[in-house]
Amino acid sequence: MVERRKPIKVNEAISRVMNFATSGKVEYVPIEDSYGRFLGEDLIADHHVPPFDRSPYDGFAIRSIDTIAASSANPIELEVVGEIGAGSVFEDTVTEGQVVRIMTGAQIPDGCDAVVMFEVVKEFENDNKSFIQLKRNVKSGDNISFTGEDTKKGTSLVRKGTFINPGIVALLATFGYKKVPVSKKPKIGIIATGSELLGVDEPLQPGKIRNSNAFMVQSQIIRAGGEPIYFGQFSDEFETCFNQVANALSQVDILITTGGVSVGDYDYLPEIYNKLHANVLFNKIGMRPGSVTTVAEIEGKLLYGLSGNPSACYVGFELYTRPIIRTFLHHTNAFLKKEVAILGSDFPKPNPFDRFVRGHLTYESGRLVATPVGLDKSNVVSSLAEANILIVLPGGTRGYEAGMEVSVILLEDQEGTTIEKFTTMDVNTRRSQRKYD
Amino acid sequence: MVERRKPIKVNEAISRVMNFATSGKVEYVPIEDSYGRFLGEDLIADHHVPPFDRSPYDGFAIRSIDTIAASSANPIELEVVGEIGAGSVFEDTVTEGQVVRIMTGAQIPDGCDAVVMFEVVKEFENDNKSFIQLKRNVKSGDNISFTGEDTKKGTSLVRKGTFINPGIVALLATFGYKKVPVSKKPKIGIIATGSELLGVDEPLQPGKIRNSNAFMVQSQIIRAGGEPIYFGQFSDEFETCFNQVANALSQVDILITTGGVSVGDYDYLPEIYNKLHANVLFNKIGMRPGSVTTVAEIEGKLLYGLSGNPSACYVGFELYTRPIIRTFLHHTNAFLKKEVAILGSDFPKPNPFDRFVRGHLTYESGRLVATPVGLDKSNVVSSLAEANILIVLPGGTRGYEAGMEVSVILLEDQEGTTIEKFTTMDVNTRRSQRKYD
Repeated sequence: MVERRKPIKVNEAISRVMNFATSGKVEYVPIEDSYGRFLGEDLIADHHVPPFDRSPYDGFAIRSIDTIAASSANPIELEVVGEIGAGSVFEDTVTEGQVVRIMTGAQIPDGCDAVVMFEVVKEFENDNKSFIQLKRNVKSGDNISFTGEDTKKGTSLVRKGTFINPGIVALLATFGYKKVPVSKKPKIGIIATGSELLGVDEPLQPGKIRNSNAFMVQSQIIRAGGEPIYFGQFSDEFETCFNQVANALSQVDILITTGGVSVGDYDYLPEIYNKLHANVLFNKIGMRPGSVTTVAEIEGKLLYGLSGNPSACYVGFELYTRPIIRTFLHHTNAFLKKEVAILGSDFPKPNPFDRFVRGHLTYESGRLVATPVGLDKSNVVSSLAEANILIVLPGGTRGYEAGMEVSVILLEDQEGTTIEKFTTMDVNTRRSQRKYD
Repeated sequence: MVERRKPIKVNEAISRVMNFATSGKVEYVPIEDSYGRFLGEDLIADHHVPPFDRSPYDGFAIRSIDTIAASSANPIELEVVGEIGAGSVFEDTVTEGQVVRIMTGAQIPDGCDAVVMFEVVKEFENDNKSFIQLKRNVKSGDNISFTGEDTKKGTSLVRKGTFINPGIVALLATFGYKKVPVSKKPKIGIIATGSELLGVDEPLQPGKIRNSNAFMVQSQIIRAGGEPIYFGQFSDEFETCFNQVANALSQVDILITTGGVSVGDYDYLPEIYNKLHANVLFNKIGMRPGSVTTVAEIEGKLLYGLSGNPSACYVGFELYTRPIIRTFLHHTNAFLKKEVAILGSDFPKPNPFDRFVRGHLTYESGRLVATPVGLDKSNVVSSLAEANILIVLPGGTRGYEAGMEVSVILLEDQEGTTIEKFTTMDVNTRRSQRKYD
């Protein structure tokens, strides 16, 4: 007899999964390996920036008081008493009528309170001494980058959990993080199921297809920030299957299986959950694709039963697994960014279920435009390649027209958003007041 | 005497650099390592998708002709003569009055031309035989995914040079790419210059700062798709410097130095270019930050003299080095995406030079909004952390107001754009007709 399952809403499914979200540990990596990881602690300034008053240009450090009378009609002459390369320090105090040649980044010498650039002075020699001629007066503080003007010592500059981009790497170096505290990656196991699956290097056989989900999910795990561990394909035999799952579970933080979760006669997963005494959080969601997405929990560890259908598998991962990975990484905005866009083409076929349609986001004159890609049959693999968004189309009795506002989920986004914003953001389906042209 | 340099326009600098763009070789990596690389050849379908007519659901494969008379008033009964799991093939031909139980993804048996889902039939047993009762008629082709309906064999599905995302990994697996042809990464050397630079693990000293550019550029190279090789910090002594550059050059495809390119007395790079008989493409650009960005060429190999100033270094890399890296990777859209956004806050200070202001892009009601981050002094490191765009502000005598349209360059984008679009796109500075609210 076929099992009857009761579908729950997407937001309810998210909420049930997130009850089991945990944060992982912190480890240290060399700064060279920190790009693309997530900060394990707040990034703190260990000194003022700049650490001293310094010159932002090549020029001459001067005393502004000496220049009060200077003008085109009355050029003044000042003696160059030394020079400071970046990284050097001028040991004396500069006194009346003196200037010091100074390089970009060098510390302003004692006595000086401004810098004039090379271009505004005339240099000359006289009696074996160097001088500059200046035809304008200078205000105290001109062309000086002051101590702490950018950042005060002790400031928390970047929050724990932030994705480390090149700018953050620069900050880490500036503040002496030779070793960087980063969030440990969750280990995520993958098991592919399905007796129809061939290995990627096997020739095609009647009735069979190559296993693509395992490799796709592996890439999604990497993109989300996790560490994938592929356990291979399931055996067809129940006891062996069961042992494979139990064994894999013991080695990972999260386990993903693909396929085997529908109500077909060959789908072992429900039975395996039973035998493991797993707490099944849900096994049916009112969404397309991915309605059979199943999540179970054993002693706080999550088991994802993603669909064997590539698109359903993809969507199930991004909606329910990614936020768990990002939370493990201490990322505050664990959910993919959700924004409003204009639908770029008609999508006439109505569907009673909420749909997550693969789409491509473009910008047109500063507006977001979302265009569905491919046929959007749930077994169409190729449209996944082009997709950089999922277009959220709430279920109903009518289709959608170009020009309507829709919600879109940004797949390549690193910033993310909170669960509150992700689950409560209006999915506008009203016709845009100003039709897009 | 100070050298006088003649600044050129940004687009002219890009065009001079791109004259020396070359494409790299192709190598093969296991599919597991292909995510995030760039396709070295077009991805070709090695078979139809689906490879055979198959069932998209669990259900019963039937002959539609048998159901013509079926209705609620006149339910028909059909005998279940076998079952097909996904991956199996039904060996016989189905004849009148017969159906076959079929699992999702399995091949439609000979004789059948439609599938009915479990939910619409009633199953029963009689005389040790299995039957279904059906109360509606079915059209030929119902619930069948037809051979090649998604993709025809031989189709080029993804173009050479495309960034490999998880969807493309799924395609690679589907079409048997156990080893994936990917573009070889260009080896990019980095040398940091500046006697003011401390190592990241050294304590601060008067007048000195820690070297952050080398690590930042290293991350930018990785993000762009290259392979960074860090050669360390320059010596202060000219001959040693020269030998370090010459030695590094021989080991890389592209060499980047940071610092040492202004007209200061301690800036050795110009002299090194001379001694190497390098062809200096330009050493001054009418832009801020990054005006001293220098690019030279020796026997087709590019030497980048990026500014020692972190922001200038960052911008110089993204504008002039990244497209060279992406071209090496066979990426057609080698330039960062440039789009129109609404300026999110005033930027009142005018500047005669074209500026590339670090900013943060957000979406508000489906529109792109660009907000400058930090003080935007060119030495402000911290604003780089938050930046996900560069706001392009053409030079002029007036500042910019919130609500104006501006061009923005998307730093985290993987899709990119062509040189034509990047360099000819209008940088609108007119006030937006509809002020943003």
